[in-house]
Amino acid sequence: MNKSNLLKIFIGLWVFLPVKAQEKIFPDKFDGEIQSLINSMTLEEKVHQLATEYPNANKRLDIENLSAGECLHGLKMPGATVFPQALAMASTWDEALIEKMGNVVAKEARAYGIHQCYSPMISVTRDARWGRIEETFGEDPFLVGSIGSAYIKGLQGMGDQRFDKDHIIATAKHFVADGEPMAGDNGAAMDISEYQLQNVHLYPFRMAINEALVGSIMPAHHLLNGIPCHVNQHIMKDVLRDQYSWDGLVVSDNRDLERLKSIFNFVHDYEDAAKKALEAGVHQELAIFEGWTKERMYGDNLVKAVGDGIIDEELVNQAVAMVLKAKFALGLIGGNVDERFDMILHPENGKPKAISFEDSEMFSKADYFGVPRNNYKEILNSPAHNQLALEVARKSITLLKNDNQLLPLNFNKYKNIAVIGPNANEVRLGGYSSSRPKYFVTVLEGIKQMAGKEANVRFAQGCDFTEEENKIPEAVDLAMESDVIILVVGGSEETTMENEDTDDLALPGAQDKLIKAIATTGKPYVVFLINGRPRAIEWAAEHAPAILEGWYLGQDTGTAVAEVLFGKVNPGGKLPVTFPRNVGQVPMFYNKLETGRPRKIYKSDPEPLFHFGHGLSYTTFSITDINLRTKSITVGDSTTIRLTIKNTGTVKGDEVVQLYIHDLLSERIRPQKELRGFKRIFLNAGESRVIQFNIGEKQLEYWNGDWRVEPGEYEIMIGTSSEKLSKHKLTVTKA
Amino acid sequence: MNKSNLLKIFIGLWVFLPVKAQEKIFPDKFDGEIQSLINSMTLEEKVHQLATEYPNANKRLDIENLSAGECLHGLKMPGATVFPQALAMASTWDEALIEKMGNVVAKEARAYGIHQCYSPMISVTRDARWGRIEETFGEDPFLVGSIGSAYIKGLQGMGDQRFDKDHIIATAKHFVADGEPMAGDNGAAMDISEYQLQNVHLYPFRMAINEALVGSIMPAHHLLNGIPCHVNQHIMKDVLRDQYSWDGLVVSDNRDLERLKSIFNFVHDYEDAAKKALEAGVHQELAIFEGWTKERMYGDNLVKAVGDGIIDEELVNQAVAMVLKAKFALGLIGGNVDERFDMILHPENGKPKAISFEDSEMFSKADYFGVPRNNYKEILNSPAHNQLALEVARKSITLLKNDNQLLPLNFNKYKNIAVIGPNANEVRLGGYSSSRPKYFVTVLEGIKQMAGKEANVRFAQGCDFTEEENKIPEAVDLAMESDVIILVVGGSEETTMENEDTDDLALPGAQDKLIKAIATTGKPYVVFLINGRPRAIEWAAEHAPAILEGWYLGQDTGTAVAEVLFGKVNPGGKLPVTFPRNVGQVPMFYNKLETGRPRKIYKSDPEPLFHFGHGLSYTTFSITDINLRTKSITVGDSTTIRLTIKNTGTVKGDEVVQLYIHDLLSERIRPQKELRGFKRIFLNAGESRVIQFNIGEKQLEYWNGDWRVEPGEYEIMIGTSSEKLSKHKLTVTKA
Repeated sequence: MNKSNLLKIFIGLWVFLPVKAQEKIFPDKFDGEIQSLINSMTLEEKVHQLATEYPNANKRLDIENLSAGECLHGLKMPGATVFPQALAMASTWDEALIEKMGNVVAKEARAYGIHQCYSPMISVTRDARWGRIEETFGEDPFLVGSIGSAYIKGLQGMGDQRFDKDHIIATAKHFVADGEPMAGDNGAAMDISEYQLQNVHLYPFRMAINEALVGSIMPAHHLLNGIPCHVNQHIMKDVLRDQYSWDGLVVSDNRDLERLKSIFNFVHDYEDAAKKALEAGVHQELAIFEGWTKERMYGDNLVKAVGDGIIDEELVNQAVAMVLKAKFALGLIGGNVDERFDMILHPENGKPKAISFEDSEMFSKADYFGVPRNNYKEILNSPAHNQLALEVARKSITLLKNDNQLLPLNFNKYKNIAVIGPNANEVRLGGYSSSRPKYFVTVLEGIKQMAGKEANVRFAQGCDFTEEENKIPEAVDLAMESDVIILVVGGSEETTMENEDTDDLALPGAQDKLIKAIATTGKPYVVFLINGRPRAIEWAAEHAPAILEGWYLGQDTGTAVAEVLFGKVNPGGKLPVTFPRNVGQVPMFYNKLETGRPRKIYKSDPEPLFHFGHGLSYTTFSITDINLRTKSITVGDSTTIRLTIKNTGTVKGDEVVQLYIHDLLSERIRPQKELRGFKRIFLNAGESRVIQFNIGEKQLEYWNGDWRVEPGEYEIMIGTSSEKLSKHKLTVTKA
Repeated sequence: MNKSNLLKIFIGLWVFLPVKAQEKIFPDKFDGEIQSLINSMTLEEKVHQLATEYPNANKRLDIENLSAGECLHGLKMPGATVFPQALAMASTWDEALIEKMGNVVAKEARAYGIHQCYSPMISVTRDARWGRIEETFGEDPFLVGSIGSAYIKGLQGMGDQRFDKDHIIATAKHFVADGEPMAGDNGAAMDISEYQLQNVHLYPFRMAINEALVGSIMPAHHLLNGIPCHVNQHIMKDVLRDQYSWDGLVVSDNRDLERLKSIFNFVHDYEDAAKKALEAGVHQELAIFEGWTKERMYGDNLVKAVGDGIIDEELVNQAVAMVLKAKFALGLIGGNVDERFDMILHPENGKPKAISFEDSEMFSKADYFGVPRNNYKEILNSPAHNQLALEVARKSITLLKNDNQLLPLNFNKYKNIAVIGPNANEVRLGGYSSSRPKYFVTVLEGIKQMAGKEANVRFAQGCDFTEEENKIPEAVDLAMESDVIILVVGGSEETTMENEDTDDLALPGAQDKLIKAIATTGKPYVVFLINGRPRAIEWAAEHAPAILEGWYLGQDTGTAVAEVLFGKVNPGGKLPVTFPRNVGQVPMFYNKLETGRPRKIYKSDPEPLFHFGHGLSYTTFSITDINLRTKSITVGDSTTIRLTIKNTGTVKGDEVVQLYIHDLLSERIRPQKELRGFKRIFLNAGESRVIQFNIGEKQLEYWNGDWRVEPGEYEIMIGTSSEKLSKHKLTVTKA
């Protein structure tokens, strides 16, 4: 063995030491009771703890059922508050706001008797073709980690409130690296070095663990370096448990344990699937589809496998102990639960019975086994919740282009307003929304309401998402009769959805033709995008006078859109994803590593349409007096960068100041720009403020065998988008 | 430390043991002389050995200069034989033919006084947007490795002929994984697990080392997992030297040592670049551009760095020793070389002077320092060489579609033939071709020559590669007056080139419109593609009656095309790459790992237009009596699969029988189909033949920590494309 191999081994040893001790996710103090409970359980009852569909097992043991739901952007239950979609949440660049939102969502979930949610998705998105891009917080590991952690903190509560009666267990998903799917294919096999895995895709999970103490993690559907994530010992044990010292609850994704056999053939049979999953530390099996019993891995076959000596019962006990830890933390064990079970259960089949609600159907869904509180309707209908949803919508809206300050519009100038497009008067909430939102304000309704009698607002659909062009002339006619046109285009839950990807990023159907047709009228027009993914709007980006992106804006879509268009609210959102010029440019994201040759594209521009972090305002801001407190620090120390931001325009507004770093010479090459801080600042016209960012381990570190800050020269960069940044040199010396 | 970590260490130790002892690339017997030579050299003379631009240094030492050239598809020098482009070479699926071609190319190179070539490129191609796709042998590791090894064997010679006066040192490039560039970007940073790196991208290099004893390897331009390939100790030392036991010559790629500083900033300065490169085992620095002296890493700065004690002279000596080993192997040391130097050198500046040749310009190129043989013109003009180039072209042509057996065409039936398209009457040779080929037969010329007086052949350009449509009507007029139309479309050296990628796979310019316009005439038409990458010809694939792919077919393009179109030759080529439906589908290749969810694409078909291995014929073949000799073997043993292939049609022709394997349950999941054998078989009408494939370690092994055959069930699959295969179960038991 030569020296370099010996060195590898020593590095190997060192890498597997945990980086730091971690606060416990669930309290230890119930461990004795948990052991007693396990001792008192039959094997069947133990196995039934590993899923949410066996409430009867809980009942005998005087344990409340652990009920799970979806909270991607609000609780996915009838009548719950629908907030803007995840990409829109990220567009706010406002952690405090998103934490508040998490609090509200948790409160509504708990009102419904839901204790755990399979949200948020903190996947780093690197391909706009992926059907799930709208469910993410975008392309930057730090932004995803920051917004994700804020939401988790809100859902779970912090400090004494953690997992209390108004909070729930959040689930960070999908672990890990589903956001960079080859060719955009949902669940595509992912292949990646440990270097990129840690610095890009694990990065937000590490933040969610270290900063938000996330209670639960869900593995991803795909193969990671040839091993299904659910049974991938490297990520599930070495990284999650050993390196990150995380001790929370792992819940499988839908059908994925069964797919170890049916899709991947990675296991010999269902018993083997259960065994490998338990060994990897998957505690619960999620299954929300009808007829799951046949294909359940943590079911009868597990009981049999333990009986046959194929699986050690101790493995089952460990999983049960974790589930019980979570239940104790949530206060689901002890007290009189009989009353609540009697309230909803048919004793014959163990299925919930309908209770009185507008949408009784929901209770036939296998994924809902909760017990609503008596006052749950009051909680759902809280005006404060609605107000917060509107506030998130306002802060999500991102102004991409505004030539000659066409926006904000003024009713004095524009008396006849045309609202045109397939998204102008439809309910567009995005994936993982309730099929029965409490209400929805369309863009047309929002504008009409704001206009009141001040202007004449008329509507034409223009087109739908098919290639049909027959409604375009009518829309052009309307445009000709109007003073300004609001074109509300984009997509829908049908054009971008969880289970379907795309090979085309153009606006679906005839929408590009609609925009061009409206442009020919010579009238001023605004393109407002409502959609689930960045679209390749190259023509519009060049020709349209004004463009805004809303993603999906939740129940108060139209209200927020109208407020922004007519200047009641000044938009301050920033893009959490890069807008590619066309589908041939993907994957496209701002923090790629340098190419080894100069880039050149045949008859095309290699630059994106809109950069990560981009977003305009109705006012202007200046950033001056940027100062590093010290030009040099030693490894382990920190410094600050301070700056003055001023609203140099005439209206109040928000700006997001962004901090990026560049490690100029490192042992492995790092991106030219890495977001490591941001602050959304509100300023009245003329107002200025001094703000500062910390620059320490969190900002400078990267993973290269371990998490480390390397000595050397760094560029500390400040700006209001990733495109143009002011650079400041920092020297980091050896400790 | 827990058990799993201990296990990792033991696995770690084991992985780094060389798999097997390797035959020496260059003989050891000159080691004593080499040592004496090094001892006699000044430091400057040593450094000058590390490049090809210092012939004077060689002269004092009585050593012939090691002169390098490009031989991608023929020697890239004036008057040399131009063979079909690399993708076309791979389309032959004929190793014996490509080895013969290598022999011819080497002979022409040696005639020009060239001793080493920077060819072949054995990158596995996984993105059709990449500008260099035409330079590769396609997307399959085994096919790339097989065709690549065959070419290397031909170039270098085998056995006693290796590196003799008619053979040269081949250079396998680029090491490693430049063929799967993110977003198709040339030189894009590559991130990959060791698992895929070994099984996909290193695979053909390992074949080139083990099977063809390749003499030289060139590292790639890009970052591999954050480290520039040229100084990536893992691939350059651990893999290449320790695991693969390779002891050949490493030459840098153009400017890449300088770019360690200028692009990547991975080194502190040029001295550091030289040091890291020497430490990684880069022996020679390639530099072919003007003005290189300023930016040379193995130049004056290296002399200075050694003098200053920054670099150990021993590192220089090791590199020099390797260069001298190569020169001894090639017979370049000893004998009277003065005469030859006097023939071409200006003593004043060390640059070659012009000699008599039609194109004297070539000798002003910095990359040519060779000394042509007296009879070099005879060698270049050899009819046998031309004949072989034509034969490769014939065998490259791939019939993609032939509805109702439109092809082959018959002069009796089609008296008026229109040859239309931007590639119908132009010289199209592809990248890395001589600017002065000895001759070129265009498709129009080839068809005219074949038609003689039997038919009336007329031409219209139809369009060029711009969007201009003004020449289309004239082409339609011609089509209307004709009985059949040969549409020769595709691309050129301008639309697909080394230094430029694309974000669009459609046929460039107005060519799709030209095809549709010709289709409206209702006349029978054939689409013949001449181009450097698969094009997204979705409309044509559905509507055109017949389609052929030729890539670039070399100097006798038109002759081969005419022979195939009119049935003198029956096409038998097979696609070495998948044809995607549109650019939104890339990366697309047949041997992806399974996705974790069912695939669905919004309003689009997830299947390719044409599958890897696809290619039709004018005759039909049957494969029967497929038999595994044994249904079960033990690890380490081998068996055979035998079958009968019969030409069941009425004309003679070639079929390529393809062998794929699928390891049904493995420790890491492998692709559903992996090519592991192929044979191109010629059969007369009605003739049948029994053939067999070996199935042993080479077919079954994969890398998972080491190269291994795992016990278990395998599917052994036989077919004539990757799409439809006949499956046969083989059990492999533990040894």
